[in-house]
Amino acid sequence: MSQFAPFYPPQRTLMGPGPSDVSPRVLGALCRPTIGHLDPKFTQLMEEIKTLLRFAFQTSHPMTFPVSAPGSTGMEMCFVNLVEPGDKILICRNGVFGERMRQNVVRAGGEAILVDNPWGDPISIDEVEQTLKNNPGIKAVAMVHAETSTGVCSDVAKLSALAHQYDALSIVDTVTSLGGIPLKVDEWELDAVYSGTQKCLSCIPGLSPVTFSERALKTIDARKTDVQSWFLDINLVRAYWDGQGGRTYHHTAPINQMYALHEALLMLHEEGLQPAWERHRYHHQALAAGLEALGLNFVVDEPYRLPQLNSIWAPEGVEEAQVRQQALHQYDLEIGAGLGEFAGKAWRIGLMGNGCHERNVRLCLTALEDGLRQQGVQVTSGAAKQALDHRYQAKS
Amino acid sequence: MSQFAPFYPPQRTLMGPGPSDVSPRVLGALCRPTIGHLDPKFTQLMEEIKTLLRFAFQTSHPMTFPVSAPGSTGMEMCFVNLVEPGDKILICRNGVFGERMRQNVVRAGGEAILVDNPWGDPISIDEVEQTLKNNPGIKAVAMVHAETSTGVCSDVAKLSALAHQYDALSIVDTVTSLGGIPLKVDEWELDAVYSGTQKCLSCIPGLSPVTFSERALKTIDARKTDVQSWFLDINLVRAYWDGQGGRTYHHTAPINQMYALHEALLMLHEEGLQPAWERHRYHHQALAAGLEALGLNFVVDEPYRLPQLNSIWAPEGVEEAQVRQQALHQYDLEIGAGLGEFAGKAWRIGLMGNGCHERNVRLCLTALEDGLRQQGVQVTSGAAKQALDHRYQAKS
Repeated sequence: MSQFAPFYPPQRTLMGPGPSDVSPRVLGALCRPTIGHLDPKFTQLMEEIKTLLRFAFQTSHPMTFPVSAPGSTGMEMCFVNLVEPGDKILICRNGVFGERMRQNVVRAGGEAILVDNPWGDPISIDEVEQTLKNNPGIKAVAMVHAETSTGVCSDVAKLSALAHQYDALSIVDTVTSLGGIPLKVDEWELDAVYSGTQKCLSCIPGLSPVTFSERALKTIDARKTDVQSWFLDINLVRAYWDGQGGRTYHHTAPINQMYALHEALLMLHEEGLQPAWERHRYHHQALAAGLEALGLNFVVDEPYRLPQLNSIWAPEGVEEAQVRQQALHQYDLEIGAGLGEFAGKAWRIGLMGNGCHERNVRLCLTALEDGLRQQGVQVTSGAAKQALDHRYQAKS
Repeated sequence: MSQFAPFYPPQRTLMGPGPSDVSPRVLGALCRPTIGHLDPKFTQLMEEIKTLLRFAFQTSHPMTFPVSAPGSTGMEMCFVNLVEPGDKILICRNGVFGERMRQNVVRAGGEAILVDNPWGDPISIDEVEQTLKNNPGIKAVAMVHAETSTGVCSDVAKLSALAHQYDALSIVDTVTSLGGIPLKVDEWELDAVYSGTQKCLSCIPGLSPVTFSERALKTIDARKTDVQSWFLDINLVRAYWDGQGGRTYHHTAPINQMYALHEALLMLHEEGLQPAWERHRYHHQALAAGLEALGLNFVVDEPYRLPQLNSIWAPEGVEEAQVRQQALHQYDLEIGAGLGEFAGKAWRIGLMGNGCHERNVRLCLTALEDGLRQQGVQVTSGAAKQALDHRYQAKS
């Protein structure tokens, strides 16, 4: 007899930094019959995915498509295509993903010029401007819109405008922002933008939507050296994703994952961007009221908080890992740990996409209240529930 | 009202070069509820996937895991980790994928030394030996076990032994061979091996199983330069996939795809490798008898033919694309086009994994017979059916 058996995952509620709860509609699309990656029906689907992604990104860029791999490859695609050896790239670093950008620049032979801001703070516009002034010839400014490691939102519209003033491109990480907070690629004139599917789109993880402006593509066309990655070379990838004159085989697209992405984008399209953004803000405010009632403090100052990713300090003396483990065991609830500088010090509570609703807010606060009490923290009984009832009744 | 609607794919029979027909068991596993990539239940699943992959590859290498992206990234992972600027790599090129290997070497700053063999021929052992003799200091020999573009099988056991005689590593493409024909990574002492999930494993496309020998890992450890890719740097990836001392977040693993891979590997394990290999050979022989009865000729000489990928010349004067389109429209049957040198000249008929059975063999021959007749080719009525009946009755 085999020592192996089919794997039946537990039914979790995912309120960490992603993946978020995937809708049954998306899972239902995921497991439809696989067809070929050059099937005429599949190429129709690819066109529709591109159109829906343009809607989600609020852009008309023709080169808008999902990379067939996780969000980190969307990041790497932007850097390996735009950076040539010796290029100066300004990296705004205020969390884990800014540092990852730096590593991408260096591995592509570029020179990373850093603007460091404390974790939990947004990127400083003034410091970026000063750095652009002091370092002529910067080719691109790389920034994270929604830092998943800290929960802070930076003003990428202003930063991108600033980059353009100094003849630099903008490279923008929107992994956690897409679908959760306002993101307007064309209006903000963002040049190379990548995202993920497992955050506010609530699709399964494994794909990375990207969009490139005309300006970014011109810069890539003018390269003197080959792109170092075969898989991520946009000149090769676009022969597959671009409908003009037939499609050239590049790699075998992850067919079923594309079904899922299409369905997730369809759901966003049905809801509308503005309602989706408002929904995230609304439930975030309820969560925040409940967290405050529990005596918990946000890492990020109020104006810069991401509604979809709430970083909270674990109170002094509390074993934060035990609280998360208890939530997992008693409530099948996943809450995120702190990452990097915040490891062991903070929790990250995701309210993303399909997981952003009243039931999850209530579940999370119930579990946290239990966990805190277990850790000997004095919690006013019913205070969080009262705060929530007040919030939700006010609106209903 | 929205101009978009859910996508319901047609129910195809996939007999091209991959993806192959995915079993309902695998699709059923694919759409189970998503859990977190650091969930303790998921890390258990990762361990079991590694164990099952070691079984499929016939290896005990600890570093055996699936890259979270298509087969082309498995290839790229092998090259970017093993090749440093200036390294001499011998590339055996007898089809599309040998050429892709060359591009990977060059993009990693290596020097590609080519052994070219005609498309449809296996790699010449003698020519590889001569080239190793004439070019001292070759670091690795890269070879394709089962060339998906031509349907030829090369003797990678002998080629790898030869590489070792000259102190070189072997890099082996097993995308189409894994699960379909004998592949014995340890017995054959293969060093860096990559595969795909959408061929003889009949899993959905989008993952790339890899395995690295101790020798390969030592070579990587001795690198003087950083690996150019952040996503594919094995030193970073192994901190996530290696169970020792907890897991470090690298990227968000494609959770649901891993469920599917686990189930596909489980099915292979239940059947057993030897029976799976025999099944592929058995149905290939029936298909071959039917194709010959239709007067069709194989591209590859009999001793080197892959059972799972049958390349057939389209007869003189036949519009090969029309035959494929007719099969798709009338039978929902996908047959592969020729690739590269063989575009417009050959068909590629896949008999892979879950798609390798009598029903598909019969369907394919029926569709081909129809298509040939439509193109004005004289076909003896019932000849293919008779050949099949004979084959299948002989065994039953």
